[in-house]
Amino acid sequence: MSRKIGVLTGGGDCPGLNAVLRAIVKTAVGRYGWEIIGFRDGYRGLVLNDYLKLKRSNVSGILVRGGTILGSSNRDNPFHFKVEENGEVKYVDMSDQVINNIAELGIECMVIIGGDGTLASARDFAKKGMKVIGVPKTIDNDLYATDTTFGFMTAVNTATDAIDKLHTTAESHHRIMILEVMGRYAGWIALESGIAGGADVILIPEIPFQIKKVAQKINDRKNAGKSFSIIVVAEGAKPLGGEMVVKKTVADSPDPIRLGGIGNYVAEQLSCLTCLETRVTVLGHVQRGGSPSPFDRILATRYGVAAVELIREEKYGMMVSLQGDRITAVTIEEAVHKLKNVPVDGELVRVAKSIGIEFGD
Amino acid sequence: MSRKIGVLTGGGDCPGLNAVLRAIVKTAVGRYGWEIIGFRDGYRGLVLNDYLKLKRSNVSGILVRGGTILGSSNRDNPFHFKVEENGEVKYVDMSDQVINNIAELGIECMVIIGGDGTLASARDFAKKGMKVIGVPKTIDNDLYATDTTFGFMTAVNTATDAIDKLHTTAESHHRIMILEVMGRYAGWIALESGIAGGADVILIPEIPFQIKKVAQKINDRKNAGKSFSIIVVAEGAKPLGGEMVVKKTVADSPDPIRLGGIGNYVAEQLSCLTCLETRVTVLGHVQRGGSPSPFDRILATRYGVAAVELIREEKYGMMVSLQGDRITAVTIEEAVHKLKNVPVDGELVRVAKSIGIEFGD
Amino acid sequence: MSRKIGVLTGGGDCPGLNAVLRAIVKTAVGRYGWEIIGFRDGYRGLVLNDYLKLKRSNVSGILVRGGTILGSSNRDNPFHFKVEENGEVKYVDMSDQVINNIAELGIECMVIIGGDGTLASARDFAKKGMKVIGVPKTIDNDLYATDTTFGFMTAVNTATDAIDKLHTTAESHHRIMILEVMGRYAGWIALESGIAGGADVILIPEIPFQIKKVAQKINDRKNAGKSFSIIVVAEGAKPLGGEMVVKKTVADSPDPIRLGGIGNYVAEQLSCLTCLETRVTVLGHVQRGGSPSPFDRILATRYGVAAVELIREEKYGMMVSLQGDRITAVTIEEAVHKLKNVPVDGELVRVAKSIGIEFGD
Amino acid sequence: MSRKIGVLTGGGDCPGLNAVLRAIVKTAVGRYGWEIIGFRDGYRGLVLNDYLKLKRSNVSGILVRGGTILGSSNRDNPFHFKVEENGEVKYVDMSDQVINNIAELGIECMVIIGGDGTLASARDFAKKGMKVIGVPKTIDNDLYATDTTFGFMTAVNTATDAIDKLHTTAESHHRIMILEVMGRYAGWIALESGIAGGADVILIPEIPFQIKKVAQKINDRKNAGKSFSIIVVAEGAKPLGGEMVVKKTVADSPDPIRLGGIGNYVAEQLSCLTCLETRVTVLGHVQRGGSPSPFDRILATRYGVAAVELIREEKYGMMVSLQGDRITAVTIEEAVHKLKNVPVDGELVRVAKSIGIEFGD
Repeated sequence: MSRKIGVLTGGGDCPGLNAVLRAIVKTAVGRYGWEIIGFRDGYRGLVLNDYLKLKRSNVSGILVRGGTILGSSNRDNPFHFKVEENGEVKYVDMSDQVINNIAELGIECMVIIGGDGTLASARDFAKKGMKVIGVPKTIDNDLYATDTTFGFMTAVNTATDAIDKLHTTAESHHRIMILEVMGRYAGWIALESGIAGGADVILIPEIPFQIKKVAQKINDRKNAGKSFSIIVVAEGAKPLGGEMVVKKTVADSPDPIRLGGIGNYVAEQLSCLTCLETRVTVLGHVQRGGSPSPFDRILATRYGVAAVELIREEKYGMMVSLQGDRITAVTIEEAVHKLKNVPVDGELVRVAKSIGIEFGD
Repeated sequence: MSRKIGVLTGGGDCPGLNAVLRAIVKTAVGRYGWEIIGFRDGYRGLVLNDYLKLKRSNVSGILVRGGTILGSSNRDNPFHFKVEENGEVKYVDMSDQVINNIAELGIECMVIIGGDGTLASARDFAKKGMKVIGVPKTIDNDLYATDTTFGFMTAVNTATDAIDKLHTTAESHHRIMILEVMGRYAGWIALESGIAGGADVILIPEIPFQIKKVAQKINDRKNAGKSFSIIVVAEGAKPLGGEMVVKKTVADSPDPIRLGGIGNYVAEQLSCLTCLETRVTVLGHVQRGGSPSPFDRILATRYGVAAVELIREEKYGMMVSLQGDRITAVTIEEAVHKLKNVPVDGELVRVAKSIGIEFGD
Repeated sequence: MSRKIGVLTGGGDCPGLNAVLRAIVKTAVGRYGWEIIGFRDGYRGLVLNDYLKLKRSNVSGILVRGGTILGSSNRDNPFHFKVEENGEVKYVDMSDQVINNIAELGIECMVIIGGDGTLASARDFAKKGMKVIGVPKTIDNDLYATDTTFGFMTAVNTATDAIDKLHTTAESHHRIMILEVMGRYAGWIALESGIAGGADVILIPEIPFQIKKVAQKINDRKNAGKSFSIIVVAEGAKPLGGEMVVKKTVADSPDPIRLGGIGNYVAEQLSCLTCLETRVTVLGHVQRGGSPSPFDRILATRYGVAAVELIREEKYGMMVSLQGDRITAVTIEEAVHKLKNVPVDGELVRVAKSIGIEFGD
Repeated sequence: MSRKIGVLTGGGDCPGLNAVLRAIVKTAVGRYGWEIIGFRDGYRGLVLNDYLKLKRSNVSGILVRGGTILGSSNRDNPFHFKVEENGEVKYVDMSDQVINNIAELGIECMVIIGGDGTLASARDFAKKGMKVIGVPKTIDNDLYATDTTFGFMTAVNTATDAIDKLHTTAESHHRIMILEVMGRYAGWIALESGIAGGADVILIPEIPFQIKKVAQKINDRKNAGKSFSIIVVAEGAKPLGGEMVVKKTVADSPDPIRLGGIGNYVAEQLSCLTCLETRVTVLGHVQRGGSPSPFDRILATRYGVAAVELIREEKYGMMVSLQGDRITAVTIEEAVHKLKNVPVDGELVRVAKSIGIEFGD
């Protein structure tokens, strides 16, 4: 029986999105003979009816590529959709329009690939009767209902590679090297890349830090003959009792502005407390880019195949999920709005502390 | 309480061995103030009393390095140890010598890092009363009692990188590219790198292949306008009803000899059956080398810390193990001599078949 | 003035071909408003009139990709073109057909990107009155009339990466690791990757080797406490007084056949002469693949821009060339049929010998 | 004849320094039987008589490692050496002390590896009668007297890799991605990585930019359907008529401070002028790190061997240099204090403009 399925990718992009799309198309079109419709730029394509038919030729060669061939859109909420009319900005509920669009196209089920916000809208569409299947996506690995998502390990690889590079130059020069990585609410990238890269200090949002303890660690190392230190700091890390250091943008800040983030803040404080030179690297969106790692390509492929199988089994409202090394499914309802933070006394933090890594707590 | 612990690395090397050693030393010496003795070249060092004291300075900077700073030795069995006397080769049981050596050194427990053979000897030493802790190591990921071991993912990365490179040149030239990878008894590297690299055909020891089905797949692709194909073949793959194609060495083969392995065999057969040009890459020990991937560094670090904790808890005779995403412990007894093969109808094979990968079965 | 220019890529592919095409299109179409016609699969497209119009959108995103979007063809000579008629193979001069084809398309000049064979045909077309511009391409860096070509450095990177990986595992295991790399007539890849990777022995076609000298070097290292050695061997290397070891294919060899190349030959000999274990890696076409290195992308871009400028200056019959760090032009006539071998007492070989690398001479 | 030679590495570190040291030791010790003394932390080791004898075992395995096993020191000038006495900082001429130190050690010649500042001191020592040989080092490739130096290409590789990664995520999200790279006075890294990475805009110190022209380029792309742009900006780039945007440090700036550099400045301006989201990556010292590329390893090895040969030929006061693809020597005198800027109408800038890259001029 031929079926017609829609798919979109929403939220910040992750290496592996294309691998999911490829697996869906290869399985649904190649194996089952269904038709797949891809909407462009996340929910925006669903609202504006901007789509293309995804054939096998469309997904040829995309396995190795970062980004998403469908495009994405960060903040488009179809239930609260930004429209400009006569120069005026309004937010309108376009969800009925979406329901109409897919009905007219004859699409019976939507595969929604996205993070917390994107999946929350998917859940709301499900409540309106849409048949949806979710695929989780988060570079920060902070989704509660799945052990791991694709893209995260690639980001850890990129951050670890940067730490490896900082190591050699730090060793030659008696300096404090600070690497600011992604992780606004959850410190997984900082934690895993910090352990993998052999960092001396890791600062994450879950563990507010005391800068004096960090300085102490550096001075202890100096006294032990190690005149350099590597610090990995998640962008959302904050001092104990302090606030997150926000990078202000031109729109919301009076002049003179503080453009540096937490990495620069830590550098500033430590150069004062240790009298050592500090250097800051801000990796930024480099972490979202690049070819997905083999691990992420495999995981994304498994997710894509599993999503198609959920449709075959008519398990709508479910999201594919990795538990241990098994692919399973949970309801989208239970998946959204629960952040998976680094457990502050979980195994990974304890391992890190065992080998002498300082968290500033 | 200061304690004295021995450690050795045995069997073929894997990226991550140094990370295990580093974690053991950082935790045992740095945190608990114990003394760590490292034996050189696997059991050989234990037999010949060849060792060094491992201080924190010895493990500085080794996290990122492949190989093992202790050296290893592939086939030394202390219960059946090869000695040459007056030009004559004999095999002698040196296990009592080993027991004596560590007693004289005051070593109370040995951490044995190795694969199936190395761990089997560890079990035999345990039976003789030695306190041992095992850490699993296998590039092929074929140990039964743990979900994953370090080094495997690095090997998958290396193999996938080779497939990625073959893809571009294959596309430009209408050829069959064959990549022979490690995996004498278990096809995990071929399977995972094949999925990750987008191979068209994967041949593994667990699924004897019919070369005609492989040729059929290639001809189907040709008829669909795809004039190139990528085949990943594990060194232990074999034709249905046939034998493993062994690379003979000069010592055991009459002239003229067949030096090519299964990769060359497949190339030969397919160039005949498809009339397409074939090219073979034999990755060999390149797969054992290189800096461990972040995933493997983290896993190896967790293993090292867990091994020290097992000593503290006096859980001798146990091996650290990864189950799902948790570190746990199993008895060495139940860990050895059980191969973890690719389940021929497990999820990964089914995923691969879903996206159209041919196994020749 | 709008002009119409043709382009093709011939011979074995190289990382950087797409970068040349991109630079030609960006400059010719984007800057000068010309029209570019790309022929598929080398001269085959010219003979069979198989082409597409190359617009800027066609070259978007291809800078980083290996291979060639036009496809290539290894052995098609339009002056001696293989055709099958009634099951019979004939070789026909199709050069007049080619001249007709481009005349009818209104193409005034052809940019021919290729190696020695491809450029020889370009020269022959020039003699028939075709306006041609040559762009040199050789993975082996063995073209006489240019210092370097794109793709070569990427191949050296790939080979060096393999040596780096072999190093760690060799060190841990007291073995001889042999890496067979490309280079049928010229040993540049072996020489440069061997120096860059810290090989102990380099064997190249230009310097016939005595296997006993190689074994001597390995034994000297063993006596000095270094129980491992790395050997890089070009596929065209041969023993002094011996022949090149050819990998026979099923078509031309009686059974039993020797499928292994020079790498296996060297392994066989050395395991006999040194009693050390040997392991062979055959990189094969992996060396032609992958994303071009930044150096190669820049060089390829410079070539592409320079080719367009030669057309503007009406310097037909010329080939772009790198001399020192300057882009210049030479006549295609003087460029073809002159191999650039490794000078056996040139600076690079002397440097290699200075740091103790053995060539077996 | 046995000779005793000293060596030091000064200034900011570069991938390849270890390769130079290795080549010097392998050639001087291994081939000629000389003795090599390595001074620690640049001139500081020479002043404080802090040194070690470099044997072949010291340089084993360092070819692939970034940094310098000797350590370096950024701002120590032996003619104006910072000393603290009774809590007071003074600057003292320690050059006579240095002369004495090496005389007492019996060192007949010093090999000085460093950038402009380090080589200027070498020249001054030469004037005082010291026999010196220079080896040029600059990550920025801005030394006048040599075509290229090691480390630069590795930095270009790192920057290009970041651009490649930014590309995929930029394409998916309709954003301006800004990469700030090294290059305070010369824009070589920005220029070469920008061409290699396919940047849309390159901003370098040699070409003061008009932000409106940059915004125009981005808007032109947007109108042509390309909703993302990649900008590479050298840290020393500055607006036409403006000043270099300095990253102030806590020591020299009143609160509130501007911690962001030129990358943030450009982001701020463009988000205003184009209404597109901008994201900034500041690579920082990651560019100095990592394993040297094969090209840099070979060049560094050639430099090391050439430095030893200059000593043999007693060509003191000379610096090794790469001209085209030949290693030659120039006097240190003519090498120092001449910056090699990007020629604003040289071939590379013209090539970049040919393929549509905007410089803001």
